Amino acid sequence: MKQSYDYLIIGADAAGNSAVGQIRRNDKEATIGILEKTSIISYGACGLPYAISGSVKSFDDLIHFDGPTFGEKTKSDVLLNHEAVGVDFDSRSVRVKTPDGEKEVSYGKLMIGTGAPAIRLPFVDYSSGRVFELKTVPDGRAIQEFIQKNGAKRAAIIGAGYIGLEAAETFREMGLSVAIYEALDRPVPRLPEGLSKSIVSQMKDHDIDFRPESKVSAVKDNGSEIQITAGEKTEAYDLLLVAVGVRPATGFLEGSGLEMQKGAIVVDRYGATNVDGVYSGGDCALAYHKLLKKPVYYPLGHTANKQGRIAGMNMSGEKIAFPGIVGTQVFKFFDRAYGMTGLSKQEALEAGYEIEEASAMRPSRAGYYPGSDKVKVSLTMDKKDGTLLGAAMFGPLDSYGLIDAASALVNMGAKADEIAWMDFAYAPPFAPVWNALISAAAKG
Amino acid sequence: MKQSYDYLIIGADAAGNSAVGQIRRNDKEATIGILEKTSIISYGACGLPYAISGSVKSFDDLIHFDGPTFGEKTKSDVLLNHEAVGVDFDSRSVRVKTPDGEKEVSYGKLMIGTGAPAIRLPFVDYSSGRVFELKTVPDGRAIQEFIQKNGAKRAAIIGAGYIGLEAAETFREMGLSVAIYEALDRPVPRLPEGLSKSIVSQMKDHDIDFRPESKVSAVKDNGSEIQITAGEKTEAYDLLLVAVGVRPATGFLEGSGLEMQKGAIVVDRYGATNVDGVYSGGDCALAYHKLLKKPVYYPLGHTANKQGRIAGMNMSGEKIAFPGIVGTQVFKFFDRAYGMTGLSKQEALEAGYEIEEASAMRPSRAGYYPGSDKVKVSLTMDKKDGTLLGAAMFGPLDSYGLIDAASALVNMGAKADEIAWMDFAYAPPFAPVWNALISAAAKG
Repeated sequence: MKQSYDYLIIGADAAGNSAVGQIRRNDKEATIGILEKTSIISYGACGLPYAISGSVKSFDDLIHFDGPTFGEKTKSDVLLNHEAVGVDFDSRSVRVKTPDGEKEVSYGKLMIGTGAPAIRLPFVDYSSGRVFELKTVPDGRAIQEFIQKNGAKRAAIIGAGYIGLEAAETFREMGLSVAIYEALDRPVPRLPEGLSKSIVSQMKDHDIDFRPESKVSAVKDNGSEIQITAGEKTEAYDLLLVAVGVRPATGFLEGSGLEMQKGAIVVDRYGATNVDGVYSGGDCALAYHKLLKKPVYYPLGHTANKQGRIAGMNMSGEKIAFPGIVGTQVFKFFDRAYGMTGLSKQEALEAGYEIEEASAMRPSRAGYYPGSDKVKVSLTMDKKDGTLLGAAMFGPLDSYGLIDAASALVNMGAKADEIAWMDFAYAPPFAPVWNALISAAAKG
Repeated sequence: MKQSYDYLIIGADAAGNSAVGQIRRNDKEATIGILEKTSIISYGACGLPYAISGSVKSFDDLIHFDGPTFGEKTKSDVLLNHEAVGVDFDSRSVRVKTPDGEKEVSYGKLMIGTGAPAIRLPFVDYSSGRVFELKTVPDGRAIQEFIQKNGAKRAAIIGAGYIGLEAAETFREMGLSVAIYEALDRPVPRLPEGLSKSIVSQMKDHDIDFRPESKVSAVKDNGSEIQITAGEKTEAYDLLLVAVGVRPATGFLEGSGLEMQKGAIVVDRYGATNVDGVYSGGDCALAYHKLLKKPVYYPLGHTANKQGRIAGMNMSGEKIAFPGIVGTQVFKFFDRAYGMTGLSKQEALEAGYEIEEASAMRPSRAGYYPGSDKVKVSLTMDKKDGTLLGAAMFGPLDSYGLIDAASALVNMGAKADEIAWMDFAYAPPFAPVWNALISAAAKG
């Protein structure tokens, strides 16, 4: 381990590794060091639910590179089990906890891509062997092993966001009963209400016990099961997954002078922070929102990759501004795709827009073609001129591409009366003449 | 049958019926007459290959409405087996061949939506019971019956456009051998060469005998089989399908003073022709191309529906300009989707663009997710500023939505360096972090 690197990266996942790729492309000679507090780098966290259920065969399949391979590929030092615990921007150095004690490592330029661990609930004892999170490969392995070894039958999940839902599907596929506790009145509240309702109806179909407006007040491990109290009721489960969101991993930066908002690092469109030579991106940082025209905290895997690339480019001599995100998301829940892009109704109203809404339910393929199903698209438009601000859809899995088309339209500021006449793909095995997106736009 | 209608429509399919819907919406009292030369209206011609093979159970499933039902629904007179054989625009009347002889029908406003039958080859005797076209429901039924009754085993197809390919798939599914004669050097020449090659390789996989650069010079029915001569070779088949394109059904308008280009009716962006009170749309007419900024002949089902709607709106008091097409198309060939949108390389060059091309092959889902396959996207950009002029893709069936996203981007004039950073849907069951579209754009 060197004491000094031209480029030092903290965190060897989506953002950090994307930065390394760009730096090495632009600067063949520079020394690059990568600090990773765990022993696993570059893994597909979004694939964890599918590895637990076994539909992805091995957790190893989720890991794109091991440390040594990535180090060799990018001619960089990948320092596993090295955790950044403090920074001194004046002396351009990072304090690092290593297996052999603490060290100082100095840098020319620094990229912080430490990501975001799961939010922890204060009343939960995470040292109980029956309480789990789902963020890392070890988290996933632990859940799978626990279920297999203990023959777990009853799962509880706190949080009906998309990670909670994906885990619920996984648990049902593995034969466990599932109860989901959600403090709000519906799952995935960014979705339009109709789509949340569709999720609730799918939960019923799959015997998932959904408990909206259920604030969990106590979680107790009695040595053989987990007891969960919500309201006046206490019920017992074999395991609990807490999936109530994530928080930026920026504790080690407190007091450093780095500008943050609610713990997330503020970056400009070049990935630069307020401190000279220090860049950031990914789940530990804000991202510029194209419609809101300001940085927002919206941690998503594809954003992390792009922000990492941007930071790497600009750290190593390029000058490329990140155009910004529109917040496109998609998730699978059993046989349905749920997608959203742009502003939700709530977000649009909060941003001061007067809005108009329109939605349409249409066949996914020509109505007569085998496997034709229903797709629903909901649009949120600027009332002033019909500009598309956001869209959401649900339908069979192979209809998810409509959210990509909607994302393109939101990105480009398309208006409803343009969209209503656009020629999207039509052929009976794929789509009807008027798909749900143009049909919704025609009503807008 | 009345002798006069406020609105007279010639042709009761996509364009004509779409016009009727809009006219009735805007004008509750007007009299509407619809002349249809066959006995079948409003059918999904694109579904014919799937009804022949039986994957769509019945040809009746392709028919959205029968004449009386549509007439009742729209309060119009649907006149089946009534063929327009001449027009007199001065007296605002149409000469109609009916089962009871010829009549004159006069109109206030006229909409011509006669569509486009298959092009006929001069050296082929279409009265042979072994020669087929694939454009109408009776065409489809005739092919299916012929195969079933005669135990046909050997099919020849002239033309490797998408209808020829869809029919080839159908014939292979029904157990027939298939030979395709194509005068050009590759199938579907609007596609980039690499995609044509992929089709050729699929043909091999499915034992389809593809004969590029094969000009058929003679077709002879010897009473028990069809003999096809191309070059020096003559070979025998049980049936022949001719699928070499379509031509506008406008013969009855010759000499009428209606402006046409190569037989296709010239319409403005309101669906109006050069003759006062006469509108048109669909496969018998040109359509305004958004990129080329001029009318082109590009007969496609979804365009027909839109142009019909536009004509109907503007005939009945609205003033809505058709924004134009970009020529989006998709077709299925066995387990692959082929899509294209905007200008092909050739079209872009002919339009005077200096172009830049880029393509990328990427996983269709996260690489580790079950069923992940390969998707290729090819982009054609304006060299000057990277504006996306056209895109093509192929991949597994559920990846077709990328062509809708590309269509949205072409429609909106997006530039490669914007597209490269757009956030499209990412989740392992659907797409990788960098999909083929953004990956291709990033190279552009």
